[in-house]
Amino acid sequence: MSQPLKDVVIVGAGFAGLSAARELAGAPVNVTIIDQQNHHLFQPLLYQVATAALTPAEIAVPIRHVLRRQSNAHVLMDRVRGVDADRQEVMAESGRAVRYDALVLATGARHSYFGKPHWAEHAPGLKTLNDAFGLREKILTAFEQAEIVVADDPEAARRFQTFVVVGAGPTGVELAGAIAELAQSVMRDFRRIDRNQNRIILLEGGPRVLPTFADSLSERAARDLADLGVDVRTGAMVTDITAGSVTTDQGEIHTETVIWAAGVQASPAGKWLGIPVGRSGHVEVDATLRPEGFENIYVIGDTARHEANGSALPGIAPVAKQMGIYVGRRLAKLASGQVPSNGFRYSDAGALATIGRNRAVADIFGLKVKGFAGWLLWGAAHVYFLIGFKNRLFVLLQWLWSYLTWQRGVRLIMHREVGEGSGDA
Amino acid sequence: MSQPLKDVVIVGAGFAGLSAARELAGAPVNVTIIDQQNHHLFQPLLYQVATAALTPAEIAVPIRHVLRRQSNAHVLMDRVRGVDADRQEVMAESGRAVRYDALVLATGARHSYFGKPHWAEHAPGLKTLNDAFGLREKILTAFEQAEIVVADDPEAARRFQTFVVVGAGPTGVELAGAIAELAQSVMRDFRRIDRNQNRIILLEGGPRVLPTFADSLSERAARDLADLGVDVRTGAMVTDITAGSVTTDQGEIHTETVIWAAGVQASPAGKWLGIPVGRSGHVEVDATLRPEGFENIYVIGDTARHEANGSALPGIAPVAKQMGIYVGRRLAKLASGQVPSNGFRYSDAGALATIGRNRAVADIFGLKVKGFAGWLLWGAAHVYFLIGFKNRLFVLLQWLWSYLTWQRGVRLIMHREVGEGSGDA
Repeated sequence: MSQPLKDVVIVGAGFAGLSAARELAGAPVNVTIIDQQNHHLFQPLLYQVATAALTPAEIAVPIRHVLRRQSNAHVLMDRVRGVDADRQEVMAESGRAVRYDALVLATGARHSYFGKPHWAEHAPGLKTLNDAFGLREKILTAFEQAEIVVADDPEAARRFQTFVVVGAGPTGVELAGAIAELAQSVMRDFRRIDRNQNRIILLEGGPRVLPTFADSLSERAARDLADLGVDVRTGAMVTDITAGSVTTDQGEIHTETVIWAAGVQASPAGKWLGIPVGRSGHVEVDATLRPEGFENIYVIGDTARHEANGSALPGIAPVAKQMGIYVGRRLAKLASGQVPSNGFRYSDAGALATIGRNRAVADIFGLKVKGFAGWLLWGAAHVYFLIGFKNRLFVLLQWLWSYLTWQRGVRLIMHREVGEGSGDA
Repeated sequence: MSQPLKDVVIVGAGFAGLSAARELAGAPVNVTIIDQQNHHLFQPLLYQVATAALTPAEIAVPIRHVLRRQSNAHVLMDRVRGVDADRQEVMAESGRAVRYDALVLATGARHSYFGKPHWAEHAPGLKTLNDAFGLREKILTAFEQAEIVVADDPEAARRFQTFVVVGAGPTGVELAGAIAELAQSVMRDFRRIDRNQNRIILLEGGPRVLPTFADSLSERAARDLADLGVDVRTGAMVTDITAGSVTTDQGEIHTETVIWAAGVQASPAGKWLGIPVGRSGHVEVDATLRPEGFENIYVIGDTARHEANGSALPGIAPVAKQMGIYVGRRLAKLASGQVPSNGFRYSDAGALATIGRNRAVADIFGLKVKGFAGWLLWGAAHVYFLIGFKNRLFVLLQWLWSYLTWQRGVRLIMHREVGEGSGDA
């Protein structure tokens, strides 16, 4: 590099960005990490917030707190609007320009609606705490609404008791299973609505659930979902979503709650760099995780598209984490005047998905684990990777509590606006 | 009563309404409890949610869950719009009319701004989980903003580091103390802003903090607040609040965060009944907690104004709870054809207020307790009265954790809108 590497700017404090920042502890650089949120989010458990099993604080931790002992790290809560690669500056919403010698873009992904952005309004997805919060609100309110209308309008109640999840990847499967369990558990507190009217429908365009898993695990997951009462419909392509209904090539479903767990769209990092990106917005990166033509800019995590053995790496936490560690180490070496290591290589430990209480499928180092053993493995892995000892402890306690009592701890509806002077009634 | 007492409708599931409902367990009536929220809220600890010490789920519990074993109780999440006393019906927002033989209005209170409703925008109050959430957001964001601007604009940073609480009743005192502690604790994670620039100012129009407590306890509370770094200003009347500033008769304070803990305004129950109410909207009730001219309507809790020994009872949880129990018992007797008991009599056990870690003042059965002993008493009382064993357990654990580690568990900023396709950066 033509100039000394002193200022490293990392945009995004997800698994990728935070791993890069931590890897730079002790390196002779200033690290500035910019995120529009004040917290790092443990996304793999986000669906448990959406289904009232965990509270937001149990899966999120202030970025400042994670980095409090790393003296070369500075955190800015701000939103990035663009990158000026010539001046080596990141432009933030606050008007600040942050100079960098090396830039790491780890800005994640959002949902995409296959070119139908207007579906978003009726079928929210699940990427942020806000999303989870909104979903929790929506799901819990649906039961309340059903209870209000059931006597006068059983058809409407049935719509409120119908939940449709679109997409049967790990998030969709976990959500459908968790909603089925939530429905079972809350029904004990309702008096009027009929539990037999609850329907949880999982729609998948492909031929099987968990398409990236082995066939045997897909089959087991589908069976486990059916046991929980989830109506799994594979080969069902969604053709329209409106208020109150989802249409697939197999017919129309009347529902007040649709959740989107299908496509994703990368962050606009490609646009910031002015480089061509595909339809999903991913930035193609080379073996050193840099887009072509950029000496000192790295793109990692869900925004990056990196091919290994002929296929792109999936947008999952372990990939993001390993990419962050790779770039962090590389920059640490460069800053110390050392020759950086070889290209990035992903070490694939496998994949996990939980379907519900006692049920999960795991494919770990080639070993296929199902049922209760899979579930224990899944729980241990997730608690282990939670950042911060306190969160681990409290998540374990929450789970233990829920497991023993069959109660959901966080059934709160909070977003409803309170009118002037109307009290708490 | 001219007709059999069969249907009891309770509006509001705060301390008053919920106590009345529970007292009716086993009585030969149908109880319908209507609330616009799905949860009962433990308001005395709301300030701890606003200051990131507790999570919402720890102080709130679904109303349905509280009443799940009370087979004669039905819960409706709906908003009441009016009462038709002639037809004996409550009108709800959903369009439903709910018939009653006896009606209990326990719809609480909101803040009032002494005839300056436009202050509300700049000086939010603290009555609901939403309020607490918004305040937490506002306080935590202020530190983040200060960190962003401090290098370029130290004056602005100082405004962001200044927190003003208006009103030194228990809520104001507890908030000011908790913000001072939060400021101390979060400052360890910030790099640029100067902790000596933090200012927490408590404004009180009267001559002393905690005006309803004994003089000696007021003095102790003021001293404890000063120890925590709170700038207590008594005899300071607020004359104006705008974006960025509070003006009192003592001068102007530049600040981005003002919290209102001064006046309250009763719910519109009086309006629903078409009876004259005072400026604060309270409904005057007789010894049986009924407004004049209504045979089968009770008004209890913060909406009611009930005189005992020449002065009105304060709007606090124990009063609300005892009123609820009284009305519940009265209705149970009436429903069973028994002669109801005597008039309501409030049994005053005293009052408590906490200032911070290790510091509280209590006036229990005439005994004045301060400092660490007061704090233990305060903690025990609050945990004891939390509804639901799980909440008690988790609140204790959270407190213990915070106490031992000096950490705030819930420092999350969640409400910031995430733009389209901008990822989690």
